[in-house]
Amino acid sequence: MPETPLPIDDLQTLRQQLSELDVLSIADDLARLEPAERAKVFRLLPKGKALGVFQLLDAAHQEELLMGLRQEQVLRLVQEMDPDDRARLFDEMPATVVRKMLAGLSPRERRDTAMLLGYPDESAGRIMTPRLIRLVPTMTAAEALDRVRRRAGTAETLYALPVTDEEMRLIGMIELKDLVLAEPETPVGEIMNSETHVVRVDDDQEKVARLIQAADILAAPVVDLEGRLVGMVTVDDAMDVLGAEEGEDLARTGASEPLRRPYFSASIFRLARSRAVWLLMLSVAAILTVNVLNAFENTLESAVVLALFIPLLIGTGGNAGAQSATTIVRSMAVNDIRPEDFLRVVLREGRVGLLLGVMLGTLAYPPVWYFVGGALASIISLTLITVCTLASLVGSLMPLIARKVGVDPAVVSAPFVTTIVDATGLLVYFLIARAILGI
Amino acid sequence: MPETPLPIDDLQTLRQQLSELDVLSIADDLARLEPAERAKVFRLLPKGKALGVFQLLDAAHQEELLMGLRQEQVLRLVQEMDPDDRARLFDEMPATVVRKMLAGLSPRERRDTAMLLGYPDESAGRIMTPRLIRLVPTMTAAEALDRVRRRAGTAETLYALPVTDEEMRLIGMIELKDLVLAEPETPVGEIMNSETHVVRVDDDQEKVARLIQAADILAAPVVDLEGRLVGMVTVDDAMDVLGAEEGEDLARTGASEPLRRPYFSASIFRLARSRAVWLLMLSVAAILTVNVLNAFENTLESAVVLALFIPLLIGTGGNAGAQSATTIVRSMAVNDIRPEDFLRVVLREGRVGLLLGVMLGTLAYPPVWYFVGGALASIISLTLITVCTLASLVGSLMPLIARKVGVDPAVVSAPFVTTIVDATGLLVYFLIARAILGI
Repeated sequence: MPETPLPIDDLQTLRQQLSELDVLSIADDLARLEPAERAKVFRLLPKGKALGVFQLLDAAHQEELLMGLRQEQVLRLVQEMDPDDRARLFDEMPATVVRKMLAGLSPRERRDTAMLLGYPDESAGRIMTPRLIRLVPTMTAAEALDRVRRRAGTAETLYALPVTDEEMRLIGMIELKDLVLAEPETPVGEIMNSETHVVRVDDDQEKVARLIQAADILAAPVVDLEGRLVGMVTVDDAMDVLGAEEGEDLARTGASEPLRRPYFSASIFRLARSRAVWLLMLSVAAILTVNVLNAFENTLESAVVLALFIPLLIGTGGNAGAQSATTIVRSMAVNDIRPEDFLRVVLREGRVGLLLGVMLGTLAYPPVWYFVGGALASIISLTLITVCTLASLVGSLMPLIARKVGVDPAVVSAPFVTTIVDATGLLVYFLIARAILGI
Repeated sequence: MPETPLPIDDLQTLRQQLSELDVLSIADDLARLEPAERAKVFRLLPKGKALGVFQLLDAAHQEELLMGLRQEQVLRLVQEMDPDDRARLFDEMPATVVRKMLAGLSPRERRDTAMLLGYPDESAGRIMTPRLIRLVPTMTAAEALDRVRRRAGTAETLYALPVTDEEMRLIGMIELKDLVLAEPETPVGEIMNSETHVVRVDDDQEKVARLIQAADILAAPVVDLEGRLVGMVTVDDAMDVLGAEEGEDLARTGASEPLRRPYFSASIFRLARSRAVWLLMLSVAAILTVNVLNAFENTLESAVVLALFIPLLIGTGGNAGAQSATTIVRSMAVNDIRPEDFLRVVLREGRVGLLLGVMLGTLAYPPVWYFVGGALASIISLTLITVCTLASLVGSLMPLIARKVGVDPAVVSAPFVTTIVDATGLLVYFLIARAILGI
């Protein structure tokens, strides 16, 4: 893939380059242009490439481009998209635009897309494809292959093929390769895999994607509440879901709302907005630290030296808490930790925190003793031990509790833990200081 | 998938359950047992399921199980694994054990595995499968299908088939479905896709995985430095790589080393070790804050009230810095930001930080003015504006610089940014305070 930007201002060279580059490179370059340039380049694309490039773009960019194209160009693009990609796109667009585009679709396409849009957000139904080739167990492998050949254009994937009974109830899955390798006369029922992982249409997308990842399968069949086959989630959609979920977890660990769009397509204002609420909430929560310090103002006045260590101590506590929280959030996301492991996790993290605290406390004692004296050395060491233990406990408890009450654990991870640990750490510090200094 | 744990102590029921459960559920349950229980359950597995379950386990668990099995059991398992999975397993094991296992393989299997182990860490060569079915462009579709049928057992996937010339140079890719759908007499050269994305054996794994994700392909062909085909990276391995990379990024954002193993299989000591070095480094870096405060001890003594706002101000700065850093790290990982965007990114982030700072500074002024007075309100507001801007600049600069000098950007993200911002934030705070209070 060439890393040089497109020659926006030289129409001839640009047209030439666009005809030579593959769709992935073009999509990649488009994503990094300013909106006006993007529309201009897109309109210059050779006819055969426009759909390919469009499908590879982010929904945010697709929406933006659609707004800039003429009605018939829009309809042509939208008609040719896969139903699940189309549903995802429509999901992000204003309702008036969606209605106009739905009107341009064939009745069948319209029905497919409307059905997907009817499922809850983040559910398997939203990302599944309803376009599949259904087999029945009494067909022979040769008949099945024949059916695949005839219906190839109607399905999103030919590699994973669901087998159902007359009432559309899923009874197994078969892969294209099994049909190719089987003796032509073998019935599908004999070679299909009846031990398949079935997904319900209202299952969480992330759960479905993790299943596809863990089981190394190309697609998972989706059934409705009555057990009837309604679609399949394919591996490429699973990858996109996992990527988006991990992007969300990472953003929340860094105290931002996920952008859900490429960095350069977000305006300065949108970037600030994705952070403003978090930053404000955390700052308001941090007012707690002002109150704690205010309560100890006398102690502070009689020993200003205590103030010198405030950032160091609460910083260390915050880091220890963030370590626990990120480990737990990640382990829950990949299902290494389940709700019933609650107590086991907290006990483990408490011990890890204690170990780390004792290590830091022991290392800190000699230098503080040398520079500032024995009393302060004891205060600092004891505070480090207590704060690290406490921070690890809080850091593991908060995501676990969040999960119990149905909140995304990543939301309450690192930044919230840090803020809570800051306030309790200060309390611990000054209580220990008072006791040892006898103020 | 049943969420109830296995009945470890009731051999009969356990055996019964193991024969009924599918391999994925068993692997899932095994991962959450203590090591001794895991070995016990694994030995009870019905013969046909042992390999399936084993392949689904984490490398850390595979290693642990192998240590507990008898020599011939080990050899049987290892012989039946795919070469790339085997290479990944060997990679984690002590050299003496690997030598013993290599000796038990057939010459061909040994050569395949040794070759994969010869490629650099994190390279495409390490995760590719060398077992593939190669086609030539002059074959007809029928001949190609015939070849696929005869060699099916020797390849990891039948869906993506590389087409090469006589010298093994890659000239295109063809999918199984294209062979199935084509007229039997069509030559492969006419239906293959010659615009394929080729990966070099020493390319970074993450880059390869992102390519497979972006291009929605089932496998990417891998060529050596002379352009000769040596293997393919398949979509299931790409998913695992992306999962592992995002786990690493998340761990580092939370100031830990990635565990690289399931949570419960890590001992308390290992958990502590994955965090100790980071925590220690950050604490040592935080000594800077003690020095800054020490330099302003006089200012602090004459206005102890300044101390009350220290945790709030540096906490807010740290959060703003973490927000920038995580956004940039993520955007670089998904290739939305490239090295040449350096200046553009820093300018954007600086403006976002300024916007956020002005918002917080404006909101903070009235309450501080009311409770503590006008001078302090001005100090706090000005500090918030400066610190947020500074934090966003540092937060975007550090990962960008890390990338330039070849360090994983996630390493220097949130926690390091926070520590640096803490010290500079204090400096800014006291300089502003001195100027306004005239101390």
